[in-house]
Amino acid sequence: MGGHDKAKRGIPPKSEFSSWYPAIVEIADLVDKRYPIKGMDVWRPYGWKAMKNIDSLTHSEMTRTNHEEVNFPLLIPEDLLDKENKLVAKLKAARELGIDPSEMRYDEEVEGFKKEVYWVKHAGENELDIPMFLRPTSETAMYTLFPLWIRSHTDLPLKIYQIVNTFRYETKQTRSFIRVREIHFFEAHTAHTDEDSATEQINEDLEIVGNIMSDLKLPVIISKRPVWDTFPGAWYTIAIDVIMPNGRTLQVASCHHYRDQWAEAFDITYEDGDGVKRNCHQTTYGMSERLLGAVVGTHGDDHGLIFPPKIAPIQIVIMPVAAHKNPIVTDAAKQVSEKLSQAGFRTYIDDRDLRPGQKYYDWEIKGVPLRLEIGPRDMDKGTAFAARRTGGKAPIPLDDIVSAVTNELIEIEKELEIRSNHMMSNSIKSLESIDEQIEDGIIYHVPFDGNDSDAELLEKTTGLTILGDSIETYETEMSCIISGKMTKRKQHLARMY
Amino acid sequence: MGGHDKAKRGIPPKSEFSSWYPAIVEIADLVDKRYPIKGMDVWRPYGWKAMKNIDSLTHSEMTRTNHEEVNFPLLIPEDLLDKENKLVAKLKAARELGIDPSEMRYDEEVEGFKKEVYWVKHAGENELDIPMFLRPTSETAMYTLFPLWIRSHTDLPLKIYQIVNTFRYETKQTRSFIRVREIHFFEAHTAHTDEDSATEQINEDLEIVGNIMSDLKLPVIISKRPVWDTFPGAWYTIAIDVIMPNGRTLQVASCHHYRDQWAEAFDITYEDGDGVKRNCHQTTYGMSERLLGAVVGTHGDDHGLIFPPKIAPIQIVIMPVAAHKNPIVTDAAKQVSEKLSQAGFRTYIDDRDLRPGQKYYDWEIKGVPLRLEIGPRDMDKGTAFAARRTGGKAPIPLDDIVSAVTNELIEIEKELEIRSNHMMSNSIKSLESIDEQIEDGIIYHVPFDGNDSDAELLEKTTGLTILGDSIETYETEMSCIISGKMTKRKQHLARMY
Repeated sequence: MGGHDKAKRGIPPKSEFSSWYPAIVEIADLVDKRYPIKGMDVWRPYGWKAMKNIDSLTHSEMTRTNHEEVNFPLLIPEDLLDKENKLVAKLKAARELGIDPSEMRYDEEVEGFKKEVYWVKHAGENELDIPMFLRPTSETAMYTLFPLWIRSHTDLPLKIYQIVNTFRYETKQTRSFIRVREIHFFEAHTAHTDEDSATEQINEDLEIVGNIMSDLKLPVIISKRPVWDTFPGAWYTIAIDVIMPNGRTLQVASCHHYRDQWAEAFDITYEDGDGVKRNCHQTTYGMSERLLGAVVGTHGDDHGLIFPPKIAPIQIVIMPVAAHKNPIVTDAAKQVSEKLSQAGFRTYIDDRDLRPGQKYYDWEIKGVPLRLEIGPRDMDKGTAFAARRTGGKAPIPLDDIVSAVTNELIEIEKELEIRSNHMMSNSIKSLESIDEQIEDGIIYHVPFDGNDSDAELLEKTTGLTILGDSIETYETEMSCIISGKMTKRKQHLARMY
Repeated sequence: MGGHDKAKRGIPPKSEFSSWYPAIVEIADLVDKRYPIKGMDVWRPYGWKAMKNIDSLTHSEMTRTNHEEVNFPLLIPEDLLDKENKLVAKLKAARELGIDPSEMRYDEEVEGFKKEVYWVKHAGENELDIPMFLRPTSETAMYTLFPLWIRSHTDLPLKIYQIVNTFRYETKQTRSFIRVREIHFFEAHTAHTDEDSATEQINEDLEIVGNIMSDLKLPVIISKRPVWDTFPGAWYTIAIDVIMPNGRTLQVASCHHYRDQWAEAFDITYEDGDGVKRNCHQTTYGMSERLLGAVVGTHGDDHGLIFPPKIAPIQIVIMPVAAHKNPIVTDAAKQVSEKLSQAGFRTYIDDRDLRPGQKYYDWEIKGVPLRLEIGPRDMDKGTAFAARRTGGKAPIPLDDIVSAVTNELIEIEKELEIRSNHMMSNSIKSLESIDEQIEDGIIYHVPFDGNDSDAELLEKTTGLTILGDSIETYETEMSCIISGKMTKRKQHLARMY
C-alpha cells in the first residue's frame, strides 16, 4: 500500500517533536492525512490494529468490572437539549443564590458546546423539522433512555459503555489522534442509588485507568480539575494527563461525578426499598484515540515508533537470514512463528528479498518490540538472535522459544516503564515562589489554595495552566504561592495540549 | 435494565410475522426503539453482543482471506462526487451510443442517492463552504485515496474492509435491523490488475458468504441481479437473499464487479511489469445488520428467539435447581460454568430466586440454544439435564461435560439446518406458465430470457419482483415464460423487503 517509498523519507529527530510527531504517524503507516477534510484522517490497517488492541484492553477492563456494552445512535435531535437547558436554568438560579461555584460556568459551556457540533439540518431534499447534531459525547442521548430503564433500586447500579465515533468542529490546529474532528471515543456511563456509590465508581474508574496506563507504560499525572475546568453539570472532574516529550500535558481520560444534577434534569429516578422515589447519582468516564497519540509521543525515538508489547500490532517480527541459500532457515522461521502464534503472540515473518539493514529500518519505524533473526549459524547453535527495539541483542534458545520471547517482552516492558518513570521525575518540579524562573517543558507542583483571581494571577505570571489539585494527600502544610495562607493542597501547573 | 417486566408481555404468534418480528426484537432485549429518531434504535447489550459475534465471523473470514481492516471518515465532501459525475457523463454517452444497457440507469441512481443522504451543511455557527454528507457507503471516500496507495502491480491486489456506521434517509417504513437509518455496515473493497482477478475475488466473496450463511443456518438464494437492479457503476451485482418466514426475501449481502469503470473515473491506475499504465479492476462486497434481522426472523418461534450456537451471546444457561436447599448444587453449577468457559463457550448461571418455569420462559425468549439444569438428584447420578431450545431433553454426563455440550450444540446446529433446508424446499416452486395462480409467500423459479418490457410484463402479471438470474447452471433448455424462446436461464421471482 505504498508504504515503502514513504518509509524511505527521512524522520525528523524526536527532539524536534512538533515536526517528528506529524511525520511519524504517516511514515509508520498509522494514518493517511490526505483525506480531503481537515482533522479527519484515514486509519490505515497498522494504526487501526494498534487502536483496536487498546480497545481490547478497555473491553477486558469493562467486562471485569461488569459494565455492559451498548451502541447508541450517532444523531441527537436538538430538542433533547431542552432538558439540558432546564439544568442550565437551575444552575443559573443556584449561582444567583451563590450556592455552588462549581456550577458557575455551565450555561456558557452549553453555548460553547453548540458552537462545537456538526449539524444535520437537511436530509435528501428536505429541511428537517428538528435539526440534529452529531454526538460530541452521549449524555443527552443516553439520559433520555435511562428513565425508561431504571425503575427500582434493583436496576442499580446501571453500568454501560460504548466505543463509537464522536465529532467536534475543532477550530484549533488539528493533530492526528490528539486533536481531530472525528474522534474514536470510549464512554462509560453509570447510575447509582447515592453519592457514595457513585464515588466508589470513580474509584473503580481510576483503578481501570491505572491498569490501562500500566499496560501502555505512559507517564501520567492525575488531577482534580479546577472548578472552571469541570465538565458541564459535573460535581467534580478527575482528569488523567500524559506528559508528552515536549513537556506539554495531554488529557487522555477523565471521570466525572455528577451527583444527581443530570438525574434531576432528565428525571432519572428509582424507587428505593421503601417505595420512595429518589434521584440517581451518576458518573461518566471517557477515553479516546489520544491514548494512541500518547503512546506514539511517549515511546517513539529518532528511528520511529516503539510499541508497548501489550498493544503492538506485531509483537515479534521474524527474519530468516540468508534464506535463499538455506531453505531450512525459512522452515525454522515458520515453525517459530507458529509456536509463538499458538502461545497467543502476534508475529510476522519478513521474508522479503531485501538487505537485512533495510528490513531492520522498516521494522524500527513501525516500532515492533522484538526482532528475531534466524540464520544458519544460529540454528547450528540451536538459537535465534533477539534484538529488542529498546536496545540490546542476545541469542535465545529455539527449543524454549515461547518462554524466552515472553521474557524478552517483559524486559522491554520494564525498560519502557523505567523510561516513563524517568520522564516523570525529570519533568515535574516544585515551584516554591512565584518569582522563580519557569523552565520550558516542565510541569510544576505548586502549593496553592487561592480564589479565582489568585488562580488567574498564577496562570498569567507563570504562563502555564492549572491542571488541578493533585489527588495525593499531603501531610505538611505549606503556604499558598499566591495568597500565602497555609494549605495542604498542591496543584499541577503545565502547558496543556 | 427493566427487561423482566417487558418479558412478561405477550409475544404474538410467529404466524403473524408482521406483529411478531417488531415485538420480539424488543422483548428479547436486542434493541430499544424508544430513541426519538425514527429508524435509529439503541442497541442494548444483548443485541450488540449478538451483532459483534456476527462481526467476529466476518473478521475471521477477512483475516483468512488476507483483507486488511481500515477505518475511513464518516463525512464525505460533496465535491468528491464530481468524479462520480464524470462517471455518470461517460455512462450517459455510452447509453446514447447504445453501448451497454447495464449502464442505463446510473445517472438516475446518482440523483436518487442524493435524495437518500443526510447532509451536514453547518458546523458550529458557520455554514460550510462545501456541504458534506454522511456516508451511505464508502466508494467515493475510499477511491479518492486509492490512487495514492496504488502505484505498481506489486501493490495489487489491494484488499481492505471496514465495519462502520452508515446512513440512509429512509422514507419507507422502518424495521429494526431490516430497514434502518443508521446501519451497522460491513464493506470490503478490492482493486486488481485485471477483470479475471476481480472475478476471482467475487468467487472468494461468495465462498465467504457461504461460510457465514452456514454458521448462521440461513436459507438463502443467490441471484445475479437484473440490469436495472445492478449497483451504480457496477458491471454486475450478485445478491444474497434470505427467505424470511413470510416468504418475502431480504437482501443480506451483495458483491459487485466494477470492471474498471470506477477506476476510470477516479484515475485508479497501476504500472504493470512492463511499465505500462493500466486501469485497476475493482470489486466491493457488503453486508449489514440485516444478517441479525434474518437470524431473528428465520429461527425464532412462538416462544422467542433461537440463536444459532456460533453467534449466541449466551450459548449455555446453567440453572442450579433447588439451590437454596442444596448449596452443593450452586458449587457444581459454578464448576460446570468454569469448565465450559475455559473450553471457549459463552455461559451464564441463572441463580435468581424464581420459579424454574419463569426462568425457562425468560431464556426461551432470549433464544439461548442450550439450558443445563443441575439438581441434587441429577448430581447423584453424575449428570446434568440438557434441554435444547430446538426441542428435546436428556441427561448428559457431568464428568465429560465439555464434549457432551459440544455435541449438544452440534445437534442444535443440525436441527437449525434441517429447518432451514425445509424452509427452502417449501418456499421455492417452479412457475411453468404465466397463467398459474401465484401463491402467497412463495418464491418462484422461472425460465425467463426476455427483454426489459418482457420483464415488466412478468413482474406486473405475477405481482412479484425479479431477484435475478439463478447462478446455478442448467443443462435443459426450457421456453421463456414470456417470450417463449428456448433458454437455459432461470430467474428468481419473489416479494422483496
